[in-house]
Amino acid sequence: MQRSSIAKAITLAGASGLLLVGAQAQAQDTFEWKLVTSWPKNFPGVGQGPERLAKLVEEMSDGRLTIEVFGAGQLVPGFEVFDAVAEGTAQMGHSASYYWKGKAPAAQFFAAVPFGMNAQEMNAWLHYGGGLELWNELYDDFGVEVMTAGASGVQMGGWYNQEINSVDDLDGLKMRMPGLGGEVMNRMGVAIVNMPGGEIFTSLQSGAIDATEWIGPYNDLAFGLHQAAEYYYYPGWHEPTVMFEAIVNDEALAELPADLQAILRTAVRDVNQDVLDEYTARNNDALATLINEHDVQLRKLPDDVLAQAQEISAEVVQELADSSDIAGRIYESYRDFQDKVVNYHAISEQAYYNARNPDGGTDFGQE
Amino acid sequence: MQRSSIAKAITLAGASGLLLVGAQAQAQDTFEWKLVTSWPKNFPGVGQGPERLAKLVEEMSDGRLTIEVFGAGQLVPGFEVFDAVAEGTAQMGHSASYYWKGKAPAAQFFAAVPFGMNAQEMNAWLHYGGGLELWNELYDDFGVEVMTAGASGVQMGGWYNQEINSVDDLDGLKMRMPGLGGEVMNRMGVAIVNMPGGEIFTSLQSGAIDATEWIGPYNDLAFGLHQAAEYYYYPGWHEPTVMFEAIVNDEALAELPADLQAILRTAVRDVNQDVLDEYTARNNDALATLINEHDVQLRKLPDDVLAQAQEISAEVVQELADSSDIAGRIYESYRDFQDKVVNYHAISEQAYYNARNPDGGTDFGQE
Repeated sequence: MQRSSIAKAITLAGASGLLLVGAQAQAQDTFEWKLVTSWPKNFPGVGQGPERLAKLVEEMSDGRLTIEVFGAGQLVPGFEVFDAVAEGTAQMGHSASYYWKGKAPAAQFFAAVPFGMNAQEMNAWLHYGGGLELWNELYDDFGVEVMTAGASGVQMGGWYNQEINSVDDLDGLKMRMPGLGGEVMNRMGVAIVNMPGGEIFTSLQSGAIDATEWIGPYNDLAFGLHQAAEYYYYPGWHEPTVMFEAIVNDEALAELPADLQAILRTAVRDVNQDVLDEYTARNNDALATLINEHDVQLRKLPDDVLAQAQEISAEVVQELADSSDIAGRIYESYRDFQDKVVNYHAISEQAYYNARNPDGGTDFGQE
Repeated sequence: MQRSSIAKAITLAGASGLLLVGAQAQAQDTFEWKLVTSWPKNFPGVGQGPERLAKLVEEMSDGRLTIEVFGAGQLVPGFEVFDAVAEGTAQMGHSASYYWKGKAPAAQFFAAVPFGMNAQEMNAWLHYGGGLELWNELYDDFGVEVMTAGASGVQMGGWYNQEINSVDDLDGLKMRMPGLGGEVMNRMGVAIVNMPGGEIFTSLQSGAIDATEWIGPYNDLAFGLHQAAEYYYYPGWHEPTVMFEAIVNDEALAELPADLQAILRTAVRDVNQDVLDEYTARNNDALATLINEHDVQLRKLPDDVLAQAQEISAEVVQELADSSDIAGRIYESYRDFQDKVVNYHAISEQAYYNARNPDGGTDFGQE
């Protein structure tokens, strides 16, 4: 090879190969993220969401973005997920917004509203009704971006150690029910006791509380609540769904190239539906096990309890709306959307459920 | 630079840069796909799904996979989407499986079943109940992979040019209603007329047909059906949702590297929920426009019509199940899942709808 050829080879390498190495190095930057959650590692349903997220992101990015998932308490306690993400201890979190009501009371609108919207309705409001923009406005001050990351569907009304035949039977009961629903029950004569999830079972079994709500059959069975109370009430008017959230540290997100940002957002959106699909598929079998193998008594909440809870819920939610400018704007958007979607669902989803199963009965024959 | 340095530079370029150029060329292969649909280009709701899909895939793949979306008739007619994908004319399609009942009658189970499962239930069955595996088994012979790609939600019962007050009023009506629902109506005395979507409006206006179903308010308003019939009936027992499908040519899919396959699948899953979100958000406003601006009369189908339709639906669906081995296996899976999810939704979604809106009323005051 002559010198001129060598020089040419180097020039060519510079023009194609070596420049590509530079571009490549940038495009091939890898990111190793931590994701903290408020759930036990690999918890059924909600705990599967972040595991699926990590898997999808790794596949789609060909390993350029990997996400290590931590259960509650493994890196930070479950109720410190938001702070950990805001401070950058973890790049990402999976949780539910009502846990942050101490920081931002209006966050509760995005998790669960008594007599509010169910999963299908919440997703429509969040993605096509301006809800997600308001949610991000609320979190903006904390340096965190939020995305919708799962739903539980309509929850159960709760576990009671005695039958509830009217509003009077609630008087003086000690119950664990967090959030807006708990405040409603409080005004109906129930003494609300707050405690972390890990203490519920023992408190119910010892009689320190008479009742508790948790999630639904799939999670409640795993939690063993049937061993501590006999009566299982429906429907979960206080949580017509919980929407789960994925939160991402703004700076960490901004460091990702555009394609990885798109990959992350789309994976979260996949998980958003997948978690609800799992709950919808698994709840009935779990309920059948609770009733048929563990002699749980399934009961419908009395009409007067539901009617009074609905009335008081409107007051409690309005008080939250009045608590700040942004809470008022969020609730106005939420309420306007709910009014319209309830109207339409009256002649579509609701009318269809009632046409298909006119008496609302179940195979369990206990309602 | 001395020769040894130059030689070293070339060696380094060969070891890193030039080899990377080779690896890079493979990873950077670009794919330009065509996606054919059964909908007009940019049609509200369902037509937005493939547009969103193309955008997400391009962003996530950083342009390595681009998808050009064709409306019905632009590349192939709407009812030839399946053939076009199977033959490789297009790599991908967006449609609904009941259009392929001529090729595979059992495909109807995956689109819409009279008195069957709604969108939330179908998604649970498809993703957590074995439904999607059976759907792919059915399409396997055609060299096509299927993914869930949108849902309409509960549809409307249809447009009628006269009031229906009992089953007797159906006798002799000429109606456009495709699929299993049409067969049910046929056995209830209705003369079913098949025609492409593009002929519905003129046929209804001219009196060639007395009634038609289409989708729901958002699409029906855009279609102008209120200009051809006065009475708008609910609920859409014949289509408790339509599930839309994305179909991909097996060979085209296999040519994609693993990361692009994952990107494609996840984007489709995003679209699967997003289309339903759009319908859920838009239907009520469209219905309000139909009623308040166009004097459409909203009516509930009489109880005896719904009861008889439910009874006959069970017969029609069973006949489809009996038509082949795979149809029988699909229906067994479908029915078992439906039995369980209806049971659970009786005490969750259905009970909640009825607790929140006990009389099932709407603001329109016409029901």
